[in-house]
Amino acid sequence: MKFNIALLAGDGIGPEVIDQAVKVSDAIAQKFGHEITWKPALTGAAAIDAVGEPYPDSTHEICKNADAVLFGAIGHPKYDNDPSAPVRPEQGLLKMRKALGLFANVRPTFTFPSLLDKSPLKRERIEGTDLVFLRELTGGIYFGEKGRRDGGETAFDNCVYTRHEVQRLAKKGFELAMTRSKRLCCVDKANVLETSRLWRETVQAMEKDYPEVTVSYEFVDAVAMRLVQWPNTYDVLITENLFGDILTDEASVISGSMGLMPSASMGAEVSLFEPIHGSYPQATGLNIANPMATVLSAAMMFENFGLMEEGKAMRDSVNKALEAGIVTEDLADGGKAYGTKEVGDWLAANI
Amino acid sequence: MKFNIALLAGDGIGPEVIDQAVKVSDAIAQKFGHEITWKPALTGAAAIDAVGEPYPDSTHEICKNADAVLFGAIGHPKYDNDPSAPVRPEQGLLKMRKALGLFANVRPTFTFPSLLDKSPLKRERIEGTDLVFLRELTGGIYFGEKGRRDGGETAFDNCVYTRHEVQRLAKKGFELAMTRSKRLCCVDKANVLETSRLWRETVQAMEKDYPEVTVSYEFVDAVAMRLVQWPNTYDVLITENLFGDILTDEASVISGSMGLMPSASMGAEVSLFEPIHGSYPQATGLNIANPMATVLSAAMMFENFGLMEEGKAMRDSVNKALEAGIVTEDLADGGKAYGTKEVGDWLAANI
Ligand SMILES: CC(C)[C@H](C(=O)O)[C@@H](O)C(=O)O
Ligand SMILES: CC(C)[C@H](C(=O)O)[C@@H](O)C(=O)O
Repeated sequence: MKFNIALLAGDGIGPEVIDQAVKVSDAIAQKFGHEITWKPALTGAAAIDAVGEPYPDSTHEICKNADAVLFGAIGHPKYDNDPSAPVRPEQGLLKMRKALGLFANVRPTFTFPSLLDKSPLKRERIEGTDLVFLRELTGGIYFGEKGRRDGGETAFDNCVYTRHEVQRLAKKGFELAMTRSKRLCCVDKANVLETSRLWRETVQAMEKDYPEVTVSYEFVDAVAMRLVQWPNTYDVLITENLFGDILTDEASVISGSMGLMPSASMGAEVSLFEPIHGSYPQATGLNIANPMATVLSAAMMFENFGLMEEGKAMRDSVNKALEAGIVTEDLADGGKAYGTKEVGDWLAANI
Repeated sequence: MKFNIALLAGDGIGPEVIDQAVKVSDAIAQKFGHEITWKPALTGAAAIDAVGEPYPDSTHEICKNADAVLFGAIGHPKYDNDPSAPVRPEQGLLKMRKALGLFANVRPTFTFPSLLDKSPLKRERIEGTDLVFLRELTGGIYFGEKGRRDGGETAFDNCVYTRHEVQRLAKKGFELAMTRSKRLCCVDKANVLETSRLWRETVQAMEKDYPEVTVSYEFVDAVAMRLVQWPNTYDVLITENLFGDILTDEASVISGSMGLMPSASMGAEVSLFEPIHGSYPQATGLNIANPMATVLSAAMMFENFGLMEEGKAMRDSVNKALEAGIVTEDLADGGKAYGTKEVGDWLAANI
């Protein structure tokens, strides 16, 4: 097959980890007989510096016309202190999500046996954890009307959802649950919010189309607790944008493997794949960042193209590297630490 | 001193744990020469059953005229399945918070050395954890305009904050920090929400009035992570209503002592004290519920009256009971389990 992949490396360690994912993907392409054309494009602080905005039209053109987007990380300390600054890297992120229609953020949390002890949680609490959040990504309070009144003394943010938005996210949730343990948890705050009641009634109405899926409804505060207590009791969780923001980050730290967690943001036309970690500005250019989460994000990309074997080959390579101790300093635990590039080389060589 | 205390036992195990707190409070009153008049009033499912609504006017009258409110727990399974039912116990809770102006929910999370191993987190992660959340309780998306449009196909919830609401909550936060480690964390989502930007700018403007307090600003998703990773790095955290709902519950499970955590909801006129645990309907009437969180809530009530010695005497009694193994089955760990009433008797006898 032939693919055009938009390559948005972004800021900080973004370019370094993206380079490794490209290298490993190219090894896959060679082995399985695919042809990948990479289309680099500006985003984040790098784009603000170059052209004055974090998600320029030229980048959008490239993404829109690509078969997928591989994304590094964005964010730079010079934009951190003033969240009300007119141009910020995160605005590019939100603009991109909306413009590309990336409505479903897929965030798996799973454990690597060799990393269990890195978790802040006790081993017996996390063993076997393998859950996936589907976070709605283009609606809710993120994109509702917001502003000030009373001369700036009153601020407001509107949270809005349509039944259609809930349905299309929930459909992905049901379908994903069907490929897994067939358990779906709808996370809401239906005892307080009208949008949550819409979520709940919409999902309830869809249950009959997926008779094999067992659906539970839990309040967001209860899920915030149970994620810490018994993360391994969850399978697929669906939720709205803001709850998903909070809970996926909470979930990411429980596995002990946060530096390895990939993600996908699915749209109707194009989908985007990125590691969940940030741009770690302090590590920029030091060749110490862990590229595995980005490589695993590329694996999700291949799987999303239906190329399961290719995805598995990438995952296997990562697993082998972990077992062989070919890891960056975050996982070295006093043992030998390899550089970002060296880990990437090893992963590519082991495809 | 003389006090009138409104007594809202509520549902499930509420009445049983409240009985013990009354018993221990009466022992305090006797020892320190105070006079407490208890004013029982209906709330929750019990009130719906009796008079058709969860926070009747008669109950409001009693609360308004009391020096404090001691609250058990509310909620009953018969109201659990349909969050859109017209009358639900939680609505009484929200109505009560608003009517009594209980704008600041105080939720401490601390550890008991003897219970550290009950935490899902590793011992070294939680040792020394002693943090307090101040959650805004009468504003935000809980109380903003909400409803449907487009024939029910679109739902909305409005989140609104005024500078005054932020100031009065933040003031409590700064004052509390001054009595502790002088560190205050303002939790918001100022990279996305206008209400959060109002929170942040308002707190920033108050910093100069408390030069000794070190203030940090963190995004809610980052706090959701750090609470699991390093809970013992926090001191006082202030936040808006919905973030507070999620994060205080998340925090409650990390200490391993959830069944012992008290809380207070402070208003301009009257304040309310309650355990953070729920009404555990399955345990109703079985004399197995742990009364300690309610007793510790009563201790907060005495301290709020300025009666520090009285509060300390109650806390000491709980600590002694824990050390002596005079505990209910949730803490018995294979050892002897005492009944709710027996633990209450012991605590009262040891004042
Ligand atoms: C940077 C921020 C706007 C963003 C979000 O809240 O969606 C981030 O936290 C995320 O989860 O991707
Ligand atoms: C029952 C519910 C409305 C309530 C809330 O969300 O405030 C509860 O979760 C709490 O935290 O006291």
